[in-house]
Amino acid sequence: MKFDNLIQALIPKDKKFFTMFEKATSNLVTISKVLVELANASSPERRMELAKEIDDLEHLGDQFSHSIFSELAATFITPFDREDIHSLTSAIDDIVDHIHGASKRIILYKFERISPAMQKLSELILHGSEELHKAVCELRNMKNVSAMREACVRINSIENHADDIFDMAVAQLFEEEKSAVEIIKTKEVLQTLETATDKCEDAANVIESIMIKYA
Amino acid sequence: MKFDNLIQALIPKDKKFFTMFEKATSNLVTISKVLVELANASSPERRMELAKEIDDLEHLGDQFSHSIFSELAATFITPFDREDIHSLTSAIDDIVDHIHGASKRIILYKFERISPAMQKLSELILHGSEELHKAVCELRNMKNVSAMREACVRINSIENHADDIFDMAVAQLFEEEKSAVEIIKTKEVLQTLETATDKCEDAANVIESIMIKYA
Amino acid sequence: MKFDNLIQALIPKDKKFFTMFEKATSNLVTISKVLVELANASSPERRMELAKEIDDLEHLGDQFSHSIFSELAATFITPFDREDIHSLTSAIDDIVDHIHGASKRIILYKFERISPAMQKLSELILHGSEELHKAVCELRNMKNVSAMREACVRINSIENHADDIFDMAVAQLFEEEKSAVEIIKTKEVLQTLETATDKCEDAANVIESIMIKYA
Repeated sequence: MKFDNLIQALIPKDKKFFTMFEKATSNLVTISKVLVELANASSPERRMELAKEIDDLEHLGDQFSHSIFSELAATFITPFDREDIHSLTSAIDDIVDHIHGASKRIILYKFERISPAMQKLSELILHGSEELHKAVCELRNMKNVSAMREACVRINSIENHADDIFDMAVAQLFEEEKSAVEIIKTKEVLQTLETATDKCEDAANVIESIMIKYA
Repeated sequence: MKFDNLIQALIPKDKKFFTMFEKATSNLVTISKVLVELANASSPERRMELAKEIDDLEHLGDQFSHSIFSELAATFITPFDREDIHSLTSAIDDIVDHIHGASKRIILYKFERISPAMQKLSELILHGSEELHKAVCELRNMKNVSAMREACVRINSIENHADDIFDMAVAQLFEEEKSAVEIIKTKEVLQTLETATDKCEDAANVIESIMIKYA
Repeated sequence: MKFDNLIQALIPKDKKFFTMFEKATSNLVTISKVLVELANASSPERRMELAKEIDDLEHLGDQFSHSIFSELAATFITPFDREDIHSLTSAIDDIVDHIHGASKRIILYKFERISPAMQKLSELILHGSEELHKAVCELRNMKNVSAMREACVRINSIENHADDIFDMAVAQLFEEEKSAVEIIKTKEVLQTLETATDKCEDAANVIESIMIKYA
């Protein structure tokens, strides 16, 4: 038995993390798609149904996070730093939480219509989630480093774009919306959506840090 | 002299950290109790007195944090990762800071009455602090891992509960409160209280990460 | 060749990081000075010009951050923990981002005048940036530890001061400003400025943690 093979035999649990992360970001893509649908739904009833779907997907996401943390507790040798596994899991969980938070507030605050900025931010979250899922799927073999780096670059530019959308939308609110209460409500939802793209950037930063160490 | 004893002799400072953390979370429980009292005090004068107590306890908390950081600087071998000591200290400090921030704002913004949601959030902060203190007291011998885990689970569920209270209270404000200024003021205090429970969850996450490594 | 010299020969890239950090905090001092000028400019036209300068300096700051991250990826032996290099870079980047965010909002929200609290917070950001630059310049030889420690202490006290300015300014807004929309706009800018001093404290904490390990 060669030394390399011995090492392989010793770390059979290793690969589990990749599968778990892929499931977590696949769930993130799904929940982001439902968010885009919710942001474009015309009736409050349909929005309510989609928010219920987001509730369920958020619970599922929680389970994925807990599985990764439990696996981390039970695994001695991990495919990359324990800390990076922890941070990446938390970052994915944070994105899902902010999507859930935005959806919850859209329902709770009883908006009559979803603003174009909310729709645009939801689409940016979906694009960011898709890029993150791509990068995560490359973690397994670390061969296509340029694809991973490009995904991270795109996530950064999505975050910048979301920042601009948010700032412009808030400035426009201040100019056009007469009701201060409407401004507060709308700003709160826009902020939650914008923060989801920040968390997506946090996840990309963890992936970049893993690439620095292992690629 | 056996090797284990030699090791023991080399790390006499070790145990200090446990005592210091216990003091820090004990102070956190005390400040949380004063917050609950403040949230339930009927007169502005009494609230002012209690806010003054919170000021003093926050200063005390700062001193505990600085002692831990200084001890960390002077200690070569620590009972668990330096980084976890740093993160746990910061998280406890953050909870105290948010309790202090909420108390300061309640006085500064001159509320006539404290809303039920603020009272409820204060109680949740107290429960979270008590659970955190329990978990911290178990760090010393790491024997009752299930008690630590349960405390962390309860802190997580307290944070979820606080999140719901916050969201419902804000939605209710939007529906019932006519004054936008009142909405902004109340939302600011509710947010500060809710963030205290987030920080409590951050502390629980550090404890979970210590358990993963050492339990 | 003595062992120490061998080590020196092996780590020629080492010193690059110090130069890069010094450039980053020097840029931070520059952008902070422009912010103070913007906060004290009397005409909206002049503010617009200065905000444009801040845009450019923020792009420059981004380039510094990316250079450090790339150097980190290409360097095997670093002068201090990779993680600390990462955290310090991110913290400096965050301060710059918040200065940029405040400047952007001052323009976007079309303030007629900049409030004294905004001016004061801008000055505190400048003082914090100068202290941070001093501490970073000492990283290179780690000889003047007390100067580093004092800079960190001053940054902490600047953050506390900023906190108080923010709280008092917001309380005053609630009492004196009749327009809820003005309150929201002003509070948003004050918050962004105050958070810049928090990020400055985060940077000081990384420096303290580097001192703990290497001084």
